[in-house]
Amino acid sequence: MNKQKLIEQIKQKKTFLCVGLDPDLDKFPKHLLENEDPIFGFNREIIDATADHCIAFKPNNAFYEAYGISGIESLEKTIKYIKTSYPDHFLIADAKRGDIGNTSAMYAKAFFKRLNADAITVAPYMGSDSVKPFLGFENKWAVVLGLTSNEGSSDFQQLKVCNEELYLTVIRTCASWGTEDNMMFVVGATKAKMLQDIRKIIPNHFLLVPGVGAQGGSLEDVCKFGMNKDIGLIVNASRNIIYAGNGKDFATKAAAEAKKITEQMKMYLANERSC
Amino acid sequence: MNKQKLIEQIKQKKTFLCVGLDPDLDKFPKHLLENEDPIFGFNREIIDATADHCIAFKPNNAFYEAYGISGIESLEKTIKYIKTSYPDHFLIADAKRGDIGNTSAMYAKAFFKRLNADAITVAPYMGSDSVKPFLGFENKWAVVLGLTSNEGSSDFQQLKVCNEELYLTVIRTCASWGTEDNMMFVVGATKAKMLQDIRKIIPNHFLLVPGVGAQGGSLEDVCKFGMNKDIGLIVNASRNIIYAGNGKDFATKAAAEAKKITEQMKMYLANERSC
Repeated sequence: MNKQKLIEQIKQKKTFLCVGLDPDLDKFPKHLLENEDPIFGFNREIIDATADHCIAFKPNNAFYEAYGISGIESLEKTIKYIKTSYPDHFLIADAKRGDIGNTSAMYAKAFFKRLNADAITVAPYMGSDSVKPFLGFENKWAVVLGLTSNEGSSDFQQLKVCNEELYLTVIRTCASWGTEDNMMFVVGATKAKMLQDIRKIIPNHFLLVPGVGAQGGSLEDVCKFGMNKDIGLIVNASRNIIYAGNGKDFATKAAAEAKKITEQMKMYLANERSC
Repeated sequence: MNKQKLIEQIKQKKTFLCVGLDPDLDKFPKHLLENEDPIFGFNREIIDATADHCIAFKPNNAFYEAYGISGIESLEKTIKYIKTSYPDHFLIADAKRGDIGNTSAMYAKAFFKRLNADAITVAPYMGSDSVKPFLGFENKWAVVLGLTSNEGSSDFQQLKVCNEELYLTVIRTCASWGTEDNMMFVVGATKAKMLQDIRKIIPNHFLLVPGVGAQGGSLEDVCKFGMNKDIGLIVNASRNIIYAGNGKDFATKAAAEAKKITEQMKMYLANERSC
């Protein structure tokens, strides 16, 4: 999906919510566990229930890999289901890959060609030749980790390098390898004020913002400091949506939670000038 | 596998070679492509041929994921084959994972519990809660990226943070989260002189050294600056061993290449005092 189409989807549906699909059997409604493929069954109900209230889905690979081959099969079925039933939704494979050039190229092939994901999250520590192989695919995106939302982000990302924090250097340098049409950045919402500094460096790039909800970020701050003329934000929520309920009505509860966030987003989009 | 057993294996076999299993169908001997599972077939022959000349195997996940479910099946069969037929070999899953705490925990479960790997490579950019979940498993290892062997390692890893390069800060900080018994570091052999600085910080940790061979590192430098009283080195070679030949005798040629490296290692081990 190209940038223009993504912006159109956001403006049309008046939401920039991404639903994170992080299946964990221990948290599933019990009645699903009897299914042949409970992960896909869970995801399909969540996807159908929340699709109207979001513009993107983000399966996190770890949650599928933990279940081995059957988990990977559930992931592939989930991605295929989204691409078939909801082709206008942006699909982010949250895999945080990054390796030497020839290996990153293998990952890019796996996620963009085989799985047909629109985007993949990429870890930048290994530098240019680990990131660039993800940039050569039309209408596909590398979403580079800039500033993450977890506690450990202060260990290295916020260290001072010359006159700025490492995450700013990472964002500045990575941005020079790609364009606004093939690169986004992960920016943790729990550090919303840092968005001001980031926006000085990359005013036009899209940002993938995790951490609103379970990780405690503020949607208001994210909009205030991160929104740009194209909106420029994809805000992810996973656990607080998909595990809003754990009874037979889990999908309905997930939809209600997604709708609640989207209603807030609508308000910020309406007040776009004041953001 | 615990540290003592790893050291015993190295001393007994007089080698610290790790054979990297990076299958690429485009480079395979043509006669293998007719097999039902050419990747596992290739790996099994390489493993059988090189096992006497190495103490570790390192499948790189990207090369398997690129082939989807069937690739993952080949990976699982490969790991199972190694653990069954060569239980004294150290098995490193080169996956370079790292995510927020609950997600890293899922990866740790996948690699240590399900796949029964001895070690997994871990990307440090997200900090403590992305690394620590890999440390709580008995006789299992997190192999953290310190200084990688690729060109892009200069982009961020070698930036100055306070008075030292970032990779030294990363190694120093990560080492404080684990022990010499559950953490190793990836240190690129193409930067062998930097090993001196690294050894000042972590004199006793094991180092996984990629980049000897195809990536151009010098085994002599690695031994000179990286070896410690326990040897403390696992040196990996992938492409120059497994693709030494591409005819029917590919495994014999791979064995010869592995043996050649191991003969050099024997020399350095014999001259250990001068290293």
